[in-house]
Amino acid sequence: MKINTLLSPSNAEELFFTNKRTIVIDILRATTTIVTALNNGAKEIIPVNSIEFAMKVSGNSFGGHTLLGGERNSVKIDGFALGNSPLEYTKEIVEGKSIVLFTTNGSGAIVKAKFSKELLIASFLNAGRIAEYINKVGKDVEILCAGNNGRFSFEDSLCAGKIISEIEEQNDNLELNDGSKMCAILFKKNRKKIKKTMKESDHGKKLIEKGFKDDITFASKENIIDVIPVYDKGVVVLKK
Amino acid sequence: MKINTLLSPSNAEELFFTNKRTIVIDILRATTTIVTALNNGAKEIIPVNSIEFAMKVSGNSFGGHTLLGGERNSVKIDGFALGNSPLEYTKEIVEGKSIVLFTTNGSGAIVKAKFSKELLIASFLNAGRIAEYINKVGKDVEILCAGNNGRFSFEDSLCAGKIISEIEEQNDNLELNDGSKMCAILFKKNRKKIKKTMKESDHGKKLIEKGFKDDITFASKENIIDVIPVYDKGVVVLKK
Repeated sequence: MKINTLLSPSNAEELFFTNKRTIVIDILRATTTIVTALNNGAKEIIPVNSIEFAMKVSGNSFGGHTLLGGERNSVKIDGFALGNSPLEYTKEIVEGKSIVLFTTNGSGAIVKAKFSKELLIASFLNAGRIAEYINKVGKDVEILCAGNNGRFSFEDSLCAGKIISEIEEQNDNLELNDGSKMCAILFKKNRKKIKKTMKESDHGKKLIEKGFKDDITFASKENIIDVIPVYDKGVVVLKK
Repeated sequence: MKINTLLSPSNAEELFFTNKRTIVIDILRATTTIVTALNNGAKEIIPVNSIEFAMKVSGNSFGGHTLLGGERNSVKIDGFALGNSPLEYTKEIVEGKSIVLFTTNGSGAIVKAKFSKELLIASFLNAGRIAEYINKVGKDVEILCAGNNGRFSFEDSLCAGKIISEIEEQNDNLELNDGSKMCAILFKKNRKKIKKTMKESDHGKKLIEKGFKDDITFASKENIIDVIPVYDKGVVVLKK
């Protein structure tokens, strides 16, 4: 069984994902937020790759009954109901709602991988559940890290490494590409200090500056949510 | 002093490098080959980012007295005098020659960084000399890994990690970005098995398949060549 990890969506073509099973990771913060929102009862998340498209979808589709969420340069977009902090996506606010989500890295990464035969959304919160599912399926998988504006993001690779390590515990016949090997090394080196490492990462430092320290603490919690969000035909829902 | 590492040139704009000091690394095999060729007396290397341009430069410039070198899919290009194996670039063949070089990743990475105020070429062969020079200068530096067709390459990051670790030994006031931290971890984890790790890397396995195992053995030798190749106005020469 092969696990290929890509460190950024910018070098992959959309058609690369056709017939692949793909896991998308954007720890700070899109996939952490999606996992949280769905676990808190959101009906569905609609990831989009532009603010203009978010506005359009929100106005015309889903009967107009949507919440707009997301960020540009880490902060909430004017006119949007929600930012990209997972802590905003409480049960009171999201239950039963369709949420259109635009973020700098994560929502675009999901849209990039849209032709995958199965597209799973992972974060530290649900990494254990995702690894368990991949082991059950027992087939090749691509891990797509959203990265940081097309560049390497330490925290996304750390979470990819956690998933790879948990798969490895149950499967001693894995074939890892360069990216997967590196992620597994990062996780093994930092597994006892996930939160600290994330606070010291490029994106972590930027979020702390902008007042989102609590988001990092939350995003670093491992295996606290037992869901598998899947993207299919434009929306992310919980796998049945 | 900041060390920023980029894992691939594809997400950096040419103007990003303006006013920066940049180290380009493509272990398998372009920068290993450049270091070897210059150490063996080549007059200059002219890295180009297309085969067509290689042909054009070779025919019209440098008085027509050039050797064409390089590869596509690891093998020598039809009509070129040399491939991209450092072992071909012997003193007998290259001494006094201008060599136009096209390779899949490395030559394009160098051209991408052409606006750098100083552009240095590194490999395991001369990593120690490069680190020593950077420490002497004591200013911020970008490390640009050529990567593997726009993706992460284990061996380039491993060499970046070696350079960072050697700089770190002389400077306890370094600021590392996510990429640099990761490279330093990879090197520390694999420092005693560079050759083995390279043979098992994505690119290493491909080269072995195509019969270039000896290139990997050679490319993994550390600090055996004491030169600093610099790119300036289209050509790479030894720093005086």
